[in-house]
Amino acid sequence: MASKWNCSLAVGMLLFSNAATCGADWAIVLHGGAGTMPKDQPQETIQAYRAALNDALQRGRNILVEGGSSLDAVENVIRTLEDHPLFNAGRGAVFTHDATHELDASIMDGRTLACGAVANVTTVKHPITLARLVMERTSHVLLAGPGADRFATEVGVDRVQNEYFSTENRRRQLDDAQQRQRVKKQADPLKDSSLQRSDERYGTVGCVALDRHGNLAAGTSTGGLTNKRAGRIGDSPVIGAGTYASNATCGISATGIGEEFIRHAVAFHVSALIEHAGKSLDEAADLVLTQRLPPGAGGIVGIDAAGNIVCRYTTAGMYRAWAKSDGRHDIKIWD
Amino acid sequence: MASKWNCSLAVGMLLFSNAATCGADWAIVLHGGAGTMPKDQPQETIQAYRAALNDALQRGRNILVEGGSSLDAVENVIRTLEDHPLFNAGRGAVFTHDATHELDASIMDGRTLACGAVANVTTVKHPITLARLVMERTSHVLLAGPGADRFATEVGVDRVQNEYFSTENRRRQLDDAQQRQRVKKQADPLKDSSLQRSDERYGTVGCVALDRHGNLAAGTSTGGLTNKRAGRIGDSPVIGAGTYASNATCGISATGIGEEFIRHAVAFHVSALIEHAGKSLDEAADLVLTQRLPPGAGGIVGIDAAGNIVCRYTTAGMYRAWAKSDGRHDIKIWD
Repeated sequence: MASKWNCSLAVGMLLFSNAATCGADWAIVLHGGAGTMPKDQPQETIQAYRAALNDALQRGRNILVEGGSSLDAVENVIRTLEDHPLFNAGRGAVFTHDATHELDASIMDGRTLACGAVANVTTVKHPITLARLVMERTSHVLLAGPGADRFATEVGVDRVQNEYFSTENRRRQLDDAQQRQRVKKQADPLKDSSLQRSDERYGTVGCVALDRHGNLAAGTSTGGLTNKRAGRIGDSPVIGAGTYASNATCGISATGIGEEFIRHAVAFHVSALIEHAGKSLDEAADLVLTQRLPPGAGGIVGIDAAGNIVCRYTTAGMYRAWAKSDGRHDIKIWD
Repeated sequence: MASKWNCSLAVGMLLFSNAATCGADWAIVLHGGAGTMPKDQPQETIQAYRAALNDALQRGRNILVEGGSSLDAVENVIRTLEDHPLFNAGRGAVFTHDATHELDASIMDGRTLACGAVANVTTVKHPITLARLVMERTSHVLLAGPGADRFATEVGVDRVQNEYFSTENRRRQLDDAQQRQRVKKQADPLKDSSLQRSDERYGTVGCVALDRHGNLAAGTSTGGLTNKRAGRIGDSPVIGAGTYASNATCGISATGIGEEFIRHAVAFHVSALIEHAGKSLDEAADLVLTQRLPPGAGGIVGIDAAGNIVCRYTTAGMYRAWAKSDGRHDIKIWD
């Protein structure tokens, strides 16, 4: 009996080892923000979004197909989206109240629970890469402000002038938001209305991947809120709120009203519901979005340890794309 | 039958209402950090810690006895500890690598889940009060760096020069840490050793209170790590990591290796274990401390919705004090 068990175990281990390094499933999902995307926008705009999502998806897919790590896939997908001016991350980031850009990002390794994040960086071309370097080269998790920019100098990542992030579209959104703020301030001088409830809030980008080694990773990057106060940090660089990954449960990247996502510890909450309440990834994401967050707060993408993918949102739409090793894939904006 | 049920219901409601506003239980617990506190330190030092803990406890207790809110109790207890140079929060905060002080704090209202936090503030005498003002006067949750100091100017809280926070004891700790760092750097030039594993890491202060209206609140304040990088943010200002409060479950304030507390979303995790895994507050705090966090990572204080108090730590000791409306109370450093 003992030898039979040992034999079975050996065969099982061999199969597992084989599966884990060569033919195993991989999966990837990414988002470019959730919000009220009017369906009557020009066809060229819709096509430009779809093309950008496809570019990013292919970049991540290629890394995973070749046996690369989920961390590399997540970082590279997000770099692609940070480079693209359509999304509110990297180039194309929204403006603060002071008409500058302050960028946030985080990344987490589901295998080790190692994580890194940066907040309020102003001259780093790819905040997601700096977040990864915080994870890999420091004993800290979160670096913010001038100290984070100084760390960028130490580690030698690509730098840009703050104006590099500016686009005409985002400047128009700031002008509109400040105009609305002036009107509101006249109506209620005591109320701080720096958080504008406008379409422009939801532009965060994020990615979750499961690689052929069975490792999950997740990352998120954003320019934050149009017209935000200098120094405001949302959920994107907060591990447990905008980003979480654990091989034991799932990887999550969130987008929406950052303050609500912090208050409800959204990304970790989904993981906790899988672990402690026996929910599926889909059930957990649905519960947090519909029973905890206020209506229309945003969206969640995620992958569980078995490779199941979730894309859920309570807004009109969410820019998103996914692919799996079984050949299925999709790029969508609305339902 | 219908009238009997109605009558019972009415009596029940009356009793509940009475309990909730006049004679109901209140509870308060506070900490001044967990760490390796040598028992052979001078008796005067031990007495000074005990006296400071008692001062803070009495201040919170008086507010609760008189029917004040848990938020007021938490804020005022933490202000008292911030004023006291023995603790690593406000005056007495540790030094950064640049020999300056960068302070973090957060506060959360368990009734509404409203929360506010500040990070890397340099001239705010009571960071916990600024955190509360972020919660009450802005639409944001977390403000960091120069933007947070600017918000302090707008709302007119007490300001100080950065040197106000300095004490000789903390300067000696920085010198020691940097000396150790130089030795380590010679041994391994590539390794970032800015996170010193020294006794001085654990000085964060925090408080959780349950008031006579049945509302929980929690708050945490810290100077962070001795010799930390400029811009480093630990768990104290991260809602879900160092601080969480929900009337549905518990209030939590944590202290320890901030990076580990962020990675494991400690404060929210305790709340999630109560809500989703049916654990008691004590079981939940024990599980997170002993089964998730690395050994010796720190401590947790908390109160659940029924007024049960927990003080748990995996370090040699934790400065702590608690009191309840039934007259029981205690001030302790070791077991």
